[in-house]
Amino acid sequence: MNQHKVASVRPVSVVPLEGIPELHEADDLAGELHEAATRAGGLQLGDVVVVAQKAVSKVEGRVVRVADIEPSERARELAGADGDPRQLEVILRESVRVVRSRPPLVIAETRHGFVCASAGVDASNAPEGTLVLLPLDPDASARRLRERLLALSGADVGVIVSDSFGRPWRQGTTDVALGVAGIAALRDLRGSRDAAGHVLRTTQIAVADEIAGAAELVLGKASGVPAAIVRGVDVRGDGRGDELVMPPERDLFR
Amino acid sequence: MNQHKVASVRPVSVVPLEGIPELHEADDLAGELHEAATRAGGLQLGDVVVVAQKAVSKVEGRVVRVADIEPSERARELAGADGDPRQLEVILRESVRVVRSRPPLVIAETRHGFVCASAGVDASNAPEGTLVLLPLDPDASARRLRERLLALSGADVGVIVSDSFGRPWRQGTTDVALGVAGIAALRDLRGSRDAAGHVLRTTQIAVADEIAGAAELVLGKASGVPAAIVRGVDVRGDGRGDELVMPPERDLFR
Repeated sequence: MNQHKVASVRPVSVVPLEGIPELHEADDLAGELHEAATRAGGLQLGDVVVVAQKAVSKVEGRVVRVADIEPSERARELAGADGDPRQLEVILRESVRVVRSRPPLVIAETRHGFVCASAGVDASNAPEGTLVLLPLDPDASARRLRERLLALSGADVGVIVSDSFGRPWRQGTTDVALGVAGIAALRDLRGSRDAAGHVLRTTQIAVADEIAGAAELVLGKASGVPAAIVRGVDVRGDGRGDELVMPPERDLFR
Repeated sequence: MNQHKVASVRPVSVVPLEGIPELHEADDLAGELHEAATRAGGLQLGDVVVVAQKAVSKVEGRVVRVADIEPSERARELAGADGDPRQLEVILRESVRVVRSRPPLVIAETRHGFVCASAGVDASNAPEGTLVLLPLDPDASARRLRERLLALSGADVGVIVSDSFGRPWRQGTTDVALGVAGIAALRDLRGSRDAAGHVLRTTQIAVADEIAGAAELVLGKASGVPAAIVRGVDVRGDGRGDELVMPPERDLFR
């Protein structure tokens, strides 16, 4: 027999932030986000604003001109016959460790601890002849945006700076959280019990990564929507994106 | 200056399917999903119904009693001092390859090609003394649910059978798609260009995994919501969950 429960779980919605123009160094990204959110009905307490890393990097000036780069011998090796040694040089400068390579493809660990393709260095959606790098401190970027959005809108929201990462063993990318402010990065189930009273095996859910992935469903890289509001998740907290990086001593894949 | 575009990107919503009772072998899962969806306002053309793997496995009888299992020597080794050798034996029987182990933790490749903790074998939210295994063919499970939902509701929906997977280098789990029906598993950007005319670097987005992760935001393991509707993604197609498994020849982490 069906036990009809009282509806208790709120729906989640993902609202695209449209009409944001192409961004350049020192542009007021928080102001653009606030205006776009206002056009979409306004920010609310507990909303999470997810912003594509590339938008953040551009306003922070994390852009290099390829023509200015002198490639090292190692960069030439990693580029192979098909790659641009100058692009590989930029990737190496952003990396603390090359995890895997098959020229010209490189999977590297960034200074932040993220393991991703090309150390996050990307030529797509970048001005001609340039490469966009990851923000120096994505958590700080998220915190600054959050503070500005609070000042502009009066709404205490969470902010995620997101990027598309590949995954070992699985095809395709999913968006994940690089920087986090005002929300929990992980939902901790340790010690909680299921309906049958068992302690749950899965101890932590990477809720910030799931929110970033949900936002990607509307971001659509080629359509000029660099941000979205994710509403209804109830994850207020003071997490950091670097909590999502597995500590070396727990990492079976290091 | 702001270039106000006409709003073109639909919001996405994630609606929990509540009031579904504890499930057992041969229960009518599609009927329960249909009733819960009707209570939530009904299914619509293009909706994606995301169902937790455990609900699917239970109605398919993919449950074993731990007391019936005789552990092998290898299972005893992998269990170490803290694990249950019978549980490890079940994991080994579900595996084609142990990828990493640190007793009693095992990361294994399943017969489907999924690389995940415990080959997907799980004691949480399972009846006392039992373990729940992954469905034998999650794509077939998704297709059957989709056909039944079409017959019951008249709505042509997509179906995803989801599970929580860990990821190398990142903390916490995110839900991913094991089985897929009626939607594209991957959104292919190969050959498409960004606003500046560059061919995009990221070639495929694992949209089914992002939809599964979005659904997890309302599924909440401990709260008895085994399914959700994800609405507004526009991913109709004929993808399969096994497309999300990286082919060995492209896998840098094999």
